Parts: sequence; structure tokens; C-alpha cells
Amino acid sequence: MTRFVDKISVFDRRASAMAEAEGIARDGLRMHQGSPAVAITGPPVQGAGGSITLGQLFKRVGDAHNGGGGEEDGDGGGNDSQRHHVLEVDAFEQYHLDSRPPPPFVLTFTDLTYSVKRQQRMSLFRKNRLSSDQPEMEAELGRTKTLLNSISGEAREGEIFAVLGASGSGKSTLIDALANRIARESLQGSITLNGEKLEGRLLKVISAYVMQDDLLYPMLTVEETLMFSAEFRLPRSLSASKKKSRVQALIDQLGLRAAAKTIIGDEIHRGVSGGERRRVSIGTDIIHDPIVLFLDEPTSGLDSTSAFMVVKVLQRIAHSGSIVIMSVHQPSYRILRLLDRLLFLSRGQTVYSGPPDGLHSFFADFGHSIPDGENPTEFALDLIRELEGTPAGATALVQFNNSRQFHPTQSASAKPALSLKDAISVSISRGKLVSGATEGATSSSSSSVQKHANPFWIEMGVLTKRSWTNTKRMPELFAIRLAAVLLTGFILATIFWRLDNSPKGVQERLGFFAIAMSTMFYTCADALPVFLQERNIFMRETAYNAYRRSSYVLSNAIVSFPPLVLLSIAFALTTYFAVGLAGGIQGFIFFILIVLAAFWAGSGFVTFLSGVVTHILLGYTVVVALLAYFLLFSGFFINRNRIHDYWLWFHYMSLVKYPYEAVMQNEFDDPHKCFVRGVQMFDSTPLAALPEAAKVAVLRAMGQSLGVPITASTCITTGTGILQQQSITQLSKWDCFWVTVAWGFLFRFLFYISLLIGSRNKRR
Amino acid sequence: MTRFVDKISVFDRRASAMAEAEGIARDGLRMHQGSPAVAITGPPVQGAGGSITLGQLFKRVGDAHNGGGGEEDGDGGGNDSQRHHVLEVDAFEQYHLDSRPPPPFVLTFTDLTYSVKRQQRMSLFRKNRLSSDQPEMEAELGRTKTLLNSISGEAREGEIFAVLGASGSGKSTLIDALANRIARESLQGSITLNGEKLEGRLLKVISAYVMQDDLLYPMLTVEETLMFSAEFRLPRSLSASKKKSRVQALIDQLGLRAAAKTIIGDEIHRGVSGGERRRVSIGTDIIHDPIVLFLDEPTSGLDSTSAFMVVKVLQRIAHSGSIVIMSVHQPSYRILRLLDRLLFLSRGQTVYSGPPDGLHSFFADFGHSIPDGENPTEFALDLIRELEGTPAGATALVQFNNSRQFHPTQSASAKPALSLKDAISVSISRGKLVSGATEGATSSSSSSVQKHANPFWIEMGVLTKRSWTNTKRMPELFAIRLAAVLLTGFILATIFWRLDNSPKGVQERLGFFAIAMSTMFYTCADALPVFLQERNIFMRETAYNAYRRSSYVLSNAIVSFPPLVLLSIAFALTTYFAVGLAGGIQGFIFFILIVLAAFWAGSGFVTFLSGVVTHILLGYTVVVALLAYFLLFSGFFINRNRIHDYWLWFHYMSLVKYPYEAVMQNEFDDPHKCFVRGVQMFDSTPLAALPEAAKVAVLRAMGQSLGVPITASTCITTGTGILQQQSITQLSKWDCFWVTVAWGFLFRFLFYISLLIGSRNKRR
Repeated sequence: MTRFVDKISVFDRRASAMAEAEGIARDGLRMHQGSPAVAITGPPVQGAGGSITLGQLFKRVGDAHNGGGGEEDGDGGGNDSQRHHVLEVDAFEQYHLDSRPPPPFVLTFTDLTYSVKRQQRMSLFRKNRLSSDQPEMEAELGRTKTLLNSISGEAREGEIFAVLGASGSGKSTLIDALANRIARESLQGSITLNGEKLEGRLLKVISAYVMQDDLLYPMLTVEETLMFSAEFRLPRSLSASKKKSRVQALIDQLGLRAAAKTIIGDEIHRGVSGGERRRVSIGTDIIHDPIVLFLDEPTSGLDSTSAFMVVKVLQRIAHSGSIVIMSVHQPSYRILRLLDRLLFLSRGQTVYSGPPDGLHSFFADFGHSIPDGENPTEFALDLIRELEGTPAGATALVQFNNSRQFHPTQSASAKPALSLKDAISVSISRGKLVSGATEGATSSSSSSVQKHANPFWIEMGVLTKRSWTNTKRMPELFAIRLAAVLLTGFILATIFWRLDNSPKGVQERLGFFAIAMSTMFYTCADALPVFLQERNIFMRETAYNAYRRSSYVLSNAIVSFPPLVLLSIAFALTTYFAVGLAGGIQGFIFFILIVLAAFWAGSGFVTFLSGVVTHILLGYTVVVALLAYFLLFSGFFINRNRIHDYWLWFHYMSLVKYPYEAVMQNEFDDPHKCFVRGVQMFDSTPLAALPEAAKVAVLRAMGQSLGVPITASTCITTGTGILQQQSITQLSKWDCFWVTVAWGFLFRFLFYISLLIGSRNKRR
Repeated sequence: MTRFVDKISVFDRRASAMAEAEGIARDGLRMHQGSPAVAITGPPVQGAGGSITLGQLFKRVGDAHNGGGGEEDGDGGGNDSQRHHVLEVDAFEQYHLDSRPPPPFVLTFTDLTYSVKRQQRMSLFRKNRLSSDQPEMEAELGRTKTLLNSISGEAREGEIFAVLGASGSGKSTLIDALANRIARESLQGSITLNGEKLEGRLLKVISAYVMQDDLLYPMLTVEETLMFSAEFRLPRSLSASKKKSRVQALIDQLGLRAAAKTIIGDEIHRGVSGGERRRVSIGTDIIHDPIVLFLDEPTSGLDSTSAFMVVKVLQRIAHSGSIVIMSVHQPSYRILRLLDRLLFLSRGQTVYSGPPDGLHSFFADFGHSIPDGENPTEFALDLIRELEGTPAGATALVQFNNSRQFHPTQSASAKPALSLKDAISVSISRGKLVSGATEGATSSSSSSVQKHANPFWIEMGVLTKRSWTNTKRMPELFAIRLAAVLLTGFILATIFWRLDNSPKGVQERLGFFAIAMSTMFYTCADALPVFLQERNIFMRETAYNAYRRSSYVLSNAIVSFPPLVLLSIAFALTTYFAVGLAGGIQGFIFFILIVLAAFWAGSGFVTFLSGVVTHILLGYTVVVALLAYFLLFSGFFINRNRIHDYWLWFHYMSLVKYPYEAVMQNEFDDPHKCFVRGVQMFDSTPLAALPEAAKVAVLRAMGQSLGVPITASTCITTGTGILQQQSITQLSKWDCFWVTVAWGFLFRFLFYISLLIGSRNKRR
């Protein structure tokens, strides 16, 4: 009795909890029983596609392609009927059962070489770099480091091609090179698909790259996550029901049926398991059913059972007509049996290339037999590591491997059966490549490849909906911000309780406004972690052009706005009446508006910083320090007319200046309201100690001298006077309001720019 | 040709880089060739100890014990000669070659059961907890969860006892239970060593617990790290050269010879490899050569070769006469061969207990044969996981295991040969248990077990030396703080450049002082991450009473002080003369002192917070918010006499208040210095717009009314007047200085309290 049969007998007795595992195990078996191996080595079957002939297919694919031009104008309705056969959901279901061999794709790479210049570390750190016993140190002290050294290989449809090696061996670099994530000018060697040079844009359309990290919205369910991915990557012309069908088919393919309605989860919110999350992550990247799939260590961080299930899913994807290329650190014995082709790297050099079965004879011939029962990859990696420790390194093994290797392009089996164009057409006809972007696939002109699946406004709608769905399921985040605002509001309200109209009261009002207007900005700083998390998801998604950067920036702004309105009202209600601010209901409404504008500018500022600074603690320190400088230069600590010329520019850049001046004017712009009346004039002078009568006498004397009667109730300083003393004279309160709002927009624009610059995801 | 022989042939051709690996491999072989198995099952040899008879040994161990009482008084010199034979370095070297069996220790645990009450989550989160497909959810919804369910087993000297299971199966809990890290009243069942109940204090002396995380000072070398550990854990009576010998022996035992002079390293500073770091970590815990060693997943996060070397070291430690008990997630095939006894857990229940060799027949009898070539533990863990997915769970396997198991206490081989007291004495005579704390080992009274190896002042010296060594090798940390202080100083100096003695200038001085005195505190906040990192090391080390908490707090304060002096001088130099503050050289010196006091209080405050808040981002947010409130209540924004009574308490708690008032008095305490003179009186009134002559006329009229001549040069407000206006009247500047200093001490005392409360490392 073998292992898998055992498993099934166990599973069959079970309820729904392991239904997903069951699905994987069964399907895996079925796939094995079908003969995908024929597809790899046998001749291609020309008349693939059931009742449809190849000629018909080409015509239809061609029609779809010709009609594709009009697509970009947003009117793709006319093409629907032509595409139905391509996108027929039945096709997904059929090809699983289809035992005929798929048209063979072969990805060949020859002599890939990639070197980087090593940057010298700052001299500050150098003296601490006491040499360790790791021999790689020596290589690093040189000027350039060869990350890939003449690597060749061949990955085929229906197979899993696995790159193995210790960390630092160049696994991820090779995957990056193949996935066109290294700038072509830095990379030597050739990469071809079915003998034709792979053009970057075409590759982006027919392939997917799955990163190591699972960057998903934590509060969306598995189904929602995949549905949103479908809306981004599948063409607008595809009806909603077709997209749903694709998502449902994918959920089954990924073995996620039982978890479909469960949220992804995070540290606080319980969600799906780690293995399920990884499979959702893969699902979001393969929603368009790509022909080539790249994965960087898809099993890292998973326990052996979860890792096995992930690779099982990958095998199923390969069998559905894809090339799967993945890096893997240390596959278990069972995972190893799912891999079709291995490439072992040691410091950028190939030490073994071939099927898993070949490992035993390879190492026996090299003089190091693999002991019975030992995992061959574990043995190989250890031996490589040991050799790397010797002065000669793994050179002996590299040379031994070279001597044994047939050059892949010389072997007869490597010859692809169809040209790239034909192969893609056939593949599409069999249900692959759901994306509408395929119109460019058979074209030679790269410009016709549509960059985004949807127009701007659809993207924005979907992004906004997704972000909003995620946000509203985490009410505690908003609750924390609201609590922070209310607490500060409460403290300010009680300490500045009902300020009077005396000189001291005026001074305290200034302090209250300065602090209150800084609070908005500091409260926004607390949102930095959330922004940073979202930004990572964005980076992942724009890497394959899921949507425009501009739609993301705009939807980000839209979703963040409603909570700000609530926070503004909460803060205004707590403080405005308690402190006793002037201006009545009109003043109150303006106060809400300017608080809202400050929140808007502040959240824009923090959003922008999240685009520039990626390290969270550094970001937080920078935000806090910059806000402190903004407050310092706002005009409260030192008036504009007293700031030295060389610092005036920073005064005008101070975000706090504008809302501060706005609330000041809102409070003091009444020219008839009096803040210093008669004898209050002497409050801050030694004369304050005199009896009231003496002060009145002094006032009278002053009045006589000036020729104006001054009594105890004569107004000495009005609101306007205070504004003048504070040099708040250049902008009206509405000017300040609009400038604050404009800052918010400016920062979001800068955020957009930072994303444009920062999200280049190619190595140089 | 087997694997290991292969290895050696490879190693022998090699240079020093892999010398450590070589050492391990060779030693491992030698150990295998010697027959530790005899020690486990054979009868104990009574006359162990070479030329010394057992009677002599007992006498000498007894002598050492009797002399132990005087030890605590700090005068242990007289015992040196009596101890030499016990601590003879030759003994370490001899017992490696010694082929005679060590006296057998047997740790037996019976029916260990441990349950916890599950806390209900906050209802806020509940609605988001859509059920996942993980069946353990059901168990969690219940009130109590049984983490350990009647676990029995037996670990023997010379063997590695490994606890296996999926995450959440109870591995770590079992290790914690055995290591006395769970409060005894919560734990049911018995734990005995050689048939005698294990008393917590004795266990602490003869055992070591190695945590999963490597918490080491990054800038110390391997040798220094172990040397400091030796100074903490080995008795003061042991000479420095003996301690050095012990460290050197340990370095060889750990296979760290080649890395001995390399620093540990961190993200920025390159240091030893992960596997080496783990071995150093183990080394710091076994410096006293414990009889029982507990390790929580010692191989987690390591690649297979490093993991193998770690377990190889553990085997060597076991063979030197210790019981090694470890948890391990998924041992590779090679590691499995080093393990002597396995205990598989599934949700707190035993599903297999026995030697690795027994796995095949066990699972074959259960009806699930392990396929050839498959790693048996991998197979077992997968099968367990699959069974856990069924409604019945792993019950069938648990029952099957129970039916096969002999009760360990009933088996003849389990009977320990010597009583605990005798066994420990013999073990000590063979070189184990270097620590001077062993005098309690053979005593029945627990109070005589010495808690710390060194007196307070020695601990402090060593801690200070270690922390200082580590700090001075990271000059960039200080450089960053200095840069922050200089930058803020520069900005303040240029914006408040040469303030004049006008009413505006006075107001600006107030602002400058408020900001300057807050800067000290904010600069300290940036040190929070460093404090948190140190705190983790502290937690690890005090867990086994390496030193007193008080010595740590004091040495922490001492090491942090010198940089603060430099920062204070830097800040004072940048700002004092540029702003044009009053007081001459005396005032300058006071300014430096009060800045230093503020730094001292601030760093104390942040240190205290690092003891209370463990999450770094939360800590940072709390620090920033609290400092903002301190500034708000300092007296700058609202004067003391204007603060409502219900907030006055917080005004007095404001850390910023005291340095702020101190610098204010330093500036304004000259009763003769004039800040508002003659017509400047009208600067903030509508009269400011009048021509100079008219103002003079008004002054004259006022003077006549008051009967005092007032001219344009008459002083209206002196420094003292300003202090009165600001209600800075209660404390003198030196009072403020001393209060600030006292705050620093208070926070360090509170830090000490927080460590006392927080570092209980037992589960309830």
C-alpha cells in the first residue's frame, strides 16, 4: 500500500474540514493517471480543441485580435460574441478532463550571466567588520560580484522547474532574470520561448510572478480577494458572471473551497491558515491563467503539509498547460517527487541540472554516494556547502556537472513543436490566458499590448470598493484614532476651559490654537503603519500593471476622507464650545472645515512619507521631527515679521502655519470685539500691582495726553489688533483654508510621483 | 563508504574555515566509538574518578558545601584549595577521553497535565472571526484548553530526548513544564530526578534552559560573550584563569574555535553565521556545565547543515554527562539519527513515545507503513495532522500508543542507579557543574542554595564593562543622536538668533526655552529601540539569576551617562551664545547642567517605558504623546496660576516643567536687568502706531499720575517681573535642577520595579 492510497482512505471517511486537501490529493492522482509526460516528449497533436479545428481557432483568435484595437476606446461590447468561445467557462472545466496533450511551450535560457558592483560600506562601519569564518567574505571584498555565472536550462510546459541552492546561491536572482525583473542591459545571455526571443511586454501578459510575501488585504475573504483580482486583471469586456466563474474555477483549482468565505486575517483577526494564504496569494497572480508562472520560494515559512499542498497546486497548474518555474530552499522528500527538473546553484554556478532521479547516479559518479534513506536534496545541499568551505569552492562539482551535461539547445527533445505565435493561439483556444490583454500576444508590435485591463474610472471604483470593504471590517482602527482625538480634545478642553478675554486669555488662545492644529497632524502620523502595509500591496499589484498608479492614489484619498470628517466633527465638538471660541455657528462650521482641511493635509503628508520612507520606525521618527519643526516655524513661537530672512521660506512651507492662521482669524477677526479693556492693559506690567483706582487715574492721564478719553471700559486691543501683533495679515481665513486643502492635494500628487519613481521593480 | 567518512575525507583537505565543522564531526565519531550506550542500560561503575575514591570525593564535595556559607560574605578565598580538585581544568579535558560510563541521571515525568482558561476576545473583534476550516477552532471556543494531557516519559543522561509535534501541539509547553517554568500549582503530575522530587531551586542550579531567540550583545566577540557569561555564572572564588580555561574548553566543545574572535553581529554589522550564533547562545547558558539542559526548538530558523551541527553539539554535551531535552519541529533525516528518544505530541496528547527506530514498526502496526525513503518524522507529523483534521482527531493513534506503551516507571531499566545526592556528587567530581552554587546541590535545605554567583559590586562592574564594550563598538548610534541634537540646536540657534530685550524678544525666549527643554526628551525617545533590545537580553539572563536586577539597572544608568554629558555640552554650545542668553559663564555652566539633568530624566523616562511597554511602535507612540502632554502642562502654554485645580497635579508631574523653570530663572533672575523699557510698553497695544514723541508724552502723563517720573528709558519690566508674570515663583533654579535629577532617579527606580514585576518567567 503506498502513501497516497493511504491518504485517500483516510480522507474519504472525513467531513468538510479537510475537503480541500482531499480535492488536491485526488486531483493530483488523476493528473498522474492522465499522461502529461506525453505532452512533454511526444509530438504535439495538431487538432487540439475538441470539435473546433486549428484553422478555425486561428481565425477566431485572429478576429479577436483585430477587434482588439477598438477595445481601448472603452467600447468592447461588439467583441463579446467573438470571444465567447475563447472565454467559455466550459473550457476551464473541460481542459481538466482533457487527456490530449497540450501544445508544448519550452522556455530556454542560455549562458545567463549577471554581475553587480559591490558598494563599499560606509567607513564608519568598516572597522567593526571583524572577519568571520565565512569564505564568501573574500569574494565580497572584490569590486564586482557575479551573481549568475553562465546558467543554462530549459523549462517545459506541464512541468515544475525548481531552482535549488543555499541562501545567497543566486536562486532568486535566476528567477528574477527569467521573469524579466533584471534590466536587460545588465544581463548577458539569451532567454527564448519556443525559440523566439522573449519581449518584456509580451512576457508580462502571458506570465505571472509570485512574490515570497503574502501581501493581501487582511479583512477580505478569499473569494473577495480573488474576485477583486479578477476585476483588475480580466478585461472589462468579460461579463461579471464570467469573472465569477473564473474565480470559482480557480478556488477549486487552488483547493480553497472550504476557506472561500473566510477572511485572510492578520495578527489580530483570525483568518485562513498560512498555507491557504500562500495559495490565495498565488491565485491573485494567476487569475488570468498565465502560460509561464514564476515563484520565489513559494513554500518558505510553511509547515511540511502546507508546503506540500502548495506544490501540489503548482503541479496541477503546470498540468493545465503552464510552465512553472520556482525556487525552493529545502524541499521535503514528498515535494521532491512533484518536481520534474532541478537546477542546483552554488554561488551563481550550476552544480547540477537534471531530473530528481538523476541525483543518485550523479553524486555516485562524483564519488559521493547518497546514503539510503537520506533526502537527496538535503545531501546535495550539504555537500555543496561543505565544498564551498574549501579553498577551491565547488569548482570540482561545477566542472563535473559541465562534463556530464548535454547542452540543452542541442538535444532533440528541446525543439518546440510550434512557433510561439501558434503555440499561444492554441493555448488561448484551450482556455488559457483569460485576460483581454492577449490581443497583443500574437502581434509583433509591442505597442498594441494593452497595458491595463480596465479604464481609469473602473479601476478607481474597484479599488475604492475594495479598500472600503477592508477598512469597514476593521472598525477598531478608526476607533483608536477617534479615541486619540477625543482624548486630546478632552485634555485641551479642560485645560483651556472657558478662556476669558484678558491679555492672558489671549495668550492662552494662541497656545490652544497652536497645539490643536498640530494635533491633527500628529494623529495622522499614527496611521503610518497602515499606509505602509497598503503600499506593499500596491507595489505587488502594479508590478504586473493591475491598475494605474493614479487610480490607486485617488481611491486611496477617497477612502481615507470619510473618517476624517467624523474625526473633525468630534474634535470640534469637544473643544470649540468648551474653550469658548468666538464666531457663533458660522465660526463653528469654519472651525470644523479648517480642522478637516488640516486632517486632509496631514494624512496627505503621511501618505507621501509612506511612499518615500519604507522603514516604519524611521518613518515615524521623521514624521514626528518634521511636524515639530513645522510647529516651531508656524508663527506661534516666533512671528513672521521677526523670523530672519534666511528661514522665511520654511515658515511658508510649515503645514501648521495655514490652519493656525485660519483659526486665529476665525477667532480674532471681529474688529469690534475687545480683548484688552482699560486697566487690563497693565496686567503684564509692574503697574498690575497698583490699586484699581490708581490704574484708572493713570488711564485718565494717558487719555488726556492723547486727547482721547480712556476709562476702565475703553477698549485698548481689539481682535484685529491681536492679529496685527501676531503678523497674521497676509492671507484671509479662507485663503488659509484653501492653501491647507491645496497642501493635501500637493502631497497626494507627490505621493503619486514617489510611486512612479519608487516602484520600478527591476534590478539594475 | 558512509556519509561521515566521506565528510572527514573532505574536511581533512581543508583549511581553517571549516575547522569547527571538522571538530564536531570528528568528535561526534569519537563519541560514537566510545560506548555511551553502556552508561544508559548497564550498571553504574561505582569507583568513578580515576585515582580518587568515591569516599574521598564525597568528603571533598561535603567540605566545599560546608564552606559555602561563608561565601556570601564575599570572602571565599579560604575555599580555593578545597575546590581545586572539583574545578580542575584537567577534569574537563579528561572526561572527554574517559571511556568509563558516567553515573546515570534519569529524569522521569508522569501524567503531566496542564490546562489554561481561554480568555474571551474583545467583542469588538468577534464579528470578524468568520470561522476558518481549522478544526482546532472548536476546542478554542470552549472555556478551558488542555495544553498537556497526561504526558509521561523519561529522559536519561547521555541521551537526547526530543519532543516533536506541529506548532500548537504542546511541545514548548512540555519543555516549560519540565524546566519548572510553569507555576507548580497549575501543573498536575510529578517530575522526578533519580526518583526524587525535583525542587525548583535545585533544578535552577543544575539545569539550563535555552530560549529560541538568540539574545546576545551584537558587538561582543564570541569569546567575550562566553567570558562575560562565565563571570556572571561561575563563582567569584574561581580564579580568572580557571574561568578562561572553562571558556576555552567550551569554545572547543561548541566547535566555535574559528569564530572565537568574531563579533556576534546584527543587521548592520557582519558577524558570525546563524548556526554559530545559536551555538554561542547555547554556550552562554551552559557555561556552568549543567546536568540537565532544556532547549526550545534550538534548530529553528537554521539551514540543515547549521541545524545538524547544533544537534551534534547537543549530542556531545549529552555524552559529557548531561540529560538533553529539546523540542524540534521537523528534524532532517541526519538529525533524527542523533536523537535517542522521541515523544510525538498532538494537541497535548502523546501519540508516540520511543526510539526513532521504533517508528517504522509502530506505524506499520497501526496500519500506515512508512514508505521507503520517506523521512519517518515527516510522515508521522503529516499523518498526525491529517488525523487531527478528522472529527475523531488523533484519538485512535493516542489509544494505539497507550496500548503499546510500557509504563516507564515499571520498566526495570528506568531505575536510577544512584540517589540524586550521590549522583550529583559523582557528577561534580567528574567536572560537571562548575558553578559555586553547587554547595546546595547535595543539601536538602533549599535556602542554602546561593542565588547569585557574585556580590553586587562585582556584578555591576562586569555588567558595566560589558555594556560599555558593546556601546563603544557602535559609535554610529551615538553619532546619530549627536547629529539630531546638533541639528535641532542649529535650527533653534538660527531662528532665535540674538534675541533682543523687547517684549517680543521675551516672548520668543519663552518659546525657545520650552522647545529646547522638550528636545532633550524627544532625543531620548529615539533610544527606545536600543533599550528594548537590551531589555530582552536582561530578561534572558535574569531568568537563571545571572545577576541581580538592581546591578543591571545601575550599570545601565552608569553606561548611559557619559554620552549624555557630551550631548549636553554640544547642545549648550550651539544654542547658548547664538541666542544670546544671559548669565555669563556661570549661566552657561548652569545651562549645561540643566540640559544634562533633562537628558538624565528623559533617558530614565524612556528606560522606564521600555520596561513597561514591550512593543516598539506602541512604545514610541506613547512616549511622543506623553511628552506632548508634558510640554502642554509645563507652564509655557498656560501659567500655573491659570491652570484649573483639577489639572494642577499633572502640571507638577510634567517632566518639562522643571528644566523649563530652571532655564527661565537662569535667564530672568537678574532683578536689575530690564526687558521692557519706556515706550516699549506700548509695543503690544494700539498705541504702538503713535509717533515716538506722542508715546513719550503719554509716559510722562502716566508718570505724573503715579507721582513717579517715567521717561523713554525707564525700566517698566525687569526679569523678576517676567518670572512673576509666568508664575515661576515656587522653586529656585537649583531646586528645579535637583527635582529634575530626582526624576531621573525615580524613573530608574520604577524601571527596577517594572523589571521585578515583569520578569516572572513562569506560566500561571
